[in-house]
Amino acid sequence: MSQTIKIALLGAGTVGSGVVETLSMNADIITGRAGAAIEIKKVLVRDAKKYRPALEGLTLTDNFEEILNDPEIAVVVEVMGGRTPAKDYMMRAMAAGKHIVTANKDVIAEHLSELYAAADENGVDFLYEASVGGGIPIIKPLKECLTANRITEVMGVVNGTTNYMLTKMTEKHISYDAVLRRAQEKGYAEANPSADVDGLDAARKAAILASLAFDTVVGFKDVSVEGISHITEDDIEYGLNLGYVIKLLAVGRDTEDGLDIRVHPVFLPQTHPLGSVSGVFNAIFVRGNVIGDVMFYGRGAGSLPTASAVTSDIIEIVRDIVSGTTGRMKYKIGEKKKLCPLEKTKSSYYLRLVVADEPGVLGEIAATFGRADVSLKSVIQARRTEDGHAEIVAVTHVVPHAAASAAVKALEVLPVVREVRSLIRVADGREDTL
Amino acid sequence: MSQTIKIALLGAGTVGSGVVETLSMNADIITGRAGAAIEIKKVLVRDAKKYRPALEGLTLTDNFEEILNDPEIAVVVEVMGGRTPAKDYMMRAMAAGKHIVTANKDVIAEHLSELYAAADENGVDFLYEASVGGGIPIIKPLKECLTANRITEVMGVVNGTTNYMLTKMTEKHISYDAVLRRAQEKGYAEANPSADVDGLDAARKAAILASLAFDTVVGFKDVSVEGISHITEDDIEYGLNLGYVIKLLAVGRDTEDGLDIRVHPVFLPQTHPLGSVSGVFNAIFVRGNVIGDVMFYGRGAGSLPTASAVTSDIIEIVRDIVSGTTGRMKYKIGEKKKLCPLEKTKSSYYLRLVVADEPGVLGEIAATFGRADVSLKSVIQARRTEDGHAEIVAVTHVVPHAAASAAVKALEVLPVVREVRSLIRVADGREDTL
Repeated sequence: MSQTIKIALLGAGTVGSGVVETLSMNADIITGRAGAAIEIKKVLVRDAKKYRPALEGLTLTDNFEEILNDPEIAVVVEVMGGRTPAKDYMMRAMAAGKHIVTANKDVIAEHLSELYAAADENGVDFLYEASVGGGIPIIKPLKECLTANRITEVMGVVNGTTNYMLTKMTEKHISYDAVLRRAQEKGYAEANPSADVDGLDAARKAAILASLAFDTVVGFKDVSVEGISHITEDDIEYGLNLGYVIKLLAVGRDTEDGLDIRVHPVFLPQTHPLGSVSGVFNAIFVRGNVIGDVMFYGRGAGSLPTASAVTSDIIEIVRDIVSGTTGRMKYKIGEKKKLCPLEKTKSSYYLRLVVADEPGVLGEIAATFGRADVSLKSVIQARRTEDGHAEIVAVTHVVPHAAASAAVKALEVLPVVREVRSLIRVADGREDTL
Repeated sequence: MSQTIKIALLGAGTVGSGVVETLSMNADIITGRAGAAIEIKKVLVRDAKKYRPALEGLTLTDNFEEILNDPEIAVVVEVMGGRTPAKDYMMRAMAAGKHIVTANKDVIAEHLSELYAAADENGVDFLYEASVGGGIPIIKPLKECLTANRITEVMGVVNGTTNYMLTKMTEKHISYDAVLRRAQEKGYAEANPSADVDGLDAARKAAILASLAFDTVVGFKDVSVEGISHITEDDIEYGLNLGYVIKLLAVGRDTEDGLDIRVHPVFLPQTHPLGSVSGVFNAIFVRGNVIGDVMFYGRGAGSLPTASAVTSDIIEIVRDIVSGTTGRMKYKIGEKKKLCPLEKTKSSYYLRLVVADEPGVLGEIAATFGRADVSLKSVIQARRTEDGHAEIVAVTHVVPHAAASAAVKALEVLPVVREVRSLIRVADGREDTL
């Protein structure tokens, strides 16, 4: 076993240094499984002169051309993140006949078909397991293990930051602002937390998951997104009393009205397999017409967990190089499919209203739902507020989003309703739509 | 896309008819993904003359030679089950250059290295995803997605029958005998339930999982096995009060004393990811030194779920045939590794004792544990029994099995101890050993 395959890393941040550590720590086992030794020949960094203890002994460069023009480098591992210049580097590396491993959800969510076309044209391998769910195997299972299925639904807890925040809000009954500060202190949330809390990161993962599940091209812009910043500890508490736990979910469904791809908070039954996914853990739940329900659970971020996926992708490519079977994978993705307009998407809804604390209000509200064609599963007066109003919590049956919106509008103009404070989707039971 | 790949099924029982249904129901999507149409040319059955509505339109034969000698048949799908003649048929089919998909855990658990050698020698593909966990992707993830990891532990709820029984005993507080009758009535348990309730089925799966996780050959005979027939509803109830839920687990651990491969009931914390795997669902939990903890969850049995794995394996082989890359997979398995003797395996233990209901007994018992070098996490007098005795429940810290056994022996000869009624392993917290 004298063969050595040389690779280059683009980037040496959290994920890149995890890959360096993994290749060193498990060198013997990895060489055995790959069928060849793997050597990091060059690492692209912003400043090659800066001292980095974790990269001791490695050749650093701040010039991508040095990697591109090095014929010995067979695999380029893109772990720099961001769209620019990562995508350009990957396209040029593929044109130069180099295989690609990437962890870059931003690029995959927007340019998958272009990258696939380049891989196909140049006969190279292109793998991106780490782009969704960190270390959790989900891309390969979708591409290779569930192929017998028409997948009807994929949904996941795919953003560790928001899941940590919602978990803490649930456990400690603290406010969104307080938990955001705590997450920032712990380094789980950025100073500008928008990509996480506004659901943008989850939306990119939703686009990738939906593309693979439904054999099509779903882009970031095709995802309707709602973040978690409006979620209050009171709603979480009411939800718990109703048996629900709140999660920010990436959801993709193949419906008769088209593909329905969304990211938003959802009340899940506490007994749902995704309901017990706490803290920074991620999980992706897939429903197929043959397998039924299946779920993949693990660490969705972090240096080593993400490096597990990146390094396993590298090993797969090295196996292909050793056996002379690179370029065997199909890099075709189906045509764009019709999207389901948001108004037609269906779900059960939780609503919290602030109303006048007087007799007959509950009846008037129930009647207003009825006129909007929204049937109710339950409606309860939850509590009296300090300022002499009352809070009402209603849970609807599954209705189109348009009907729920119409009900909210009709409620808002009712004289007895002071405010419709919350509207949160509910996934009530496994067979339900969201 | 005019190519058609012809396959043969050996067996048309539960799994085989699921494969027939899947290939028909999802024909368009499967053809697209495989890159060729898949046609079932022949089905081996015991009696080709018996009418089977599910096989309408298919060519049946009761003569294996007809399949073996048909040069058009590229893939043989073994779904007949049992060791004989399934293994012999697979070996002969590989010698004839045919690729194999099998769902046969009995054969895989005992003959994996022989089958691998035959696949390697004949340059054919050999896939067996359905042999563990029904439809759940676990074999391919272990072989291809977690390759960057040194896997230290794999444990799973891999037998749906016993999990259904333990779940019902927990939910309804009914006896083992009552739940077994119910499982038999529902068709979940066989008239002779031994393979399930004595842990033999789970032990085969433990052997397969351990072989893959630890790059070695683990056979069925290398697994220490304990079934569930001694589990009582009282122990389950006491466990619940301590925060535990009971599962029959297949466990494989790579320890400094060797590989520790076992099947036995375990009290898991209710918050453990495997703790919420209920009814006929299965899940496999893997711990790697890079990824940390990861879990795969889904339906572990049944016609269609198992057919999902079998058919996805068929699709993978067809892709290889279309791209001319069959034989690319590595069919090498490492050397046999040392096994950890049962006495050296470590775990926390739950014990239930029936004792004289008199002062000082608790202290005497605690002292006896101490003399056997078993430190206790808790010991409580659980209740008085009707015949004037008392029940004591003790939970130990993590100790070698030898020490726990010595403690039991010492307790059994204590005059105040009437009986050591139960000894059940406890996995207390994620970082613990079992």
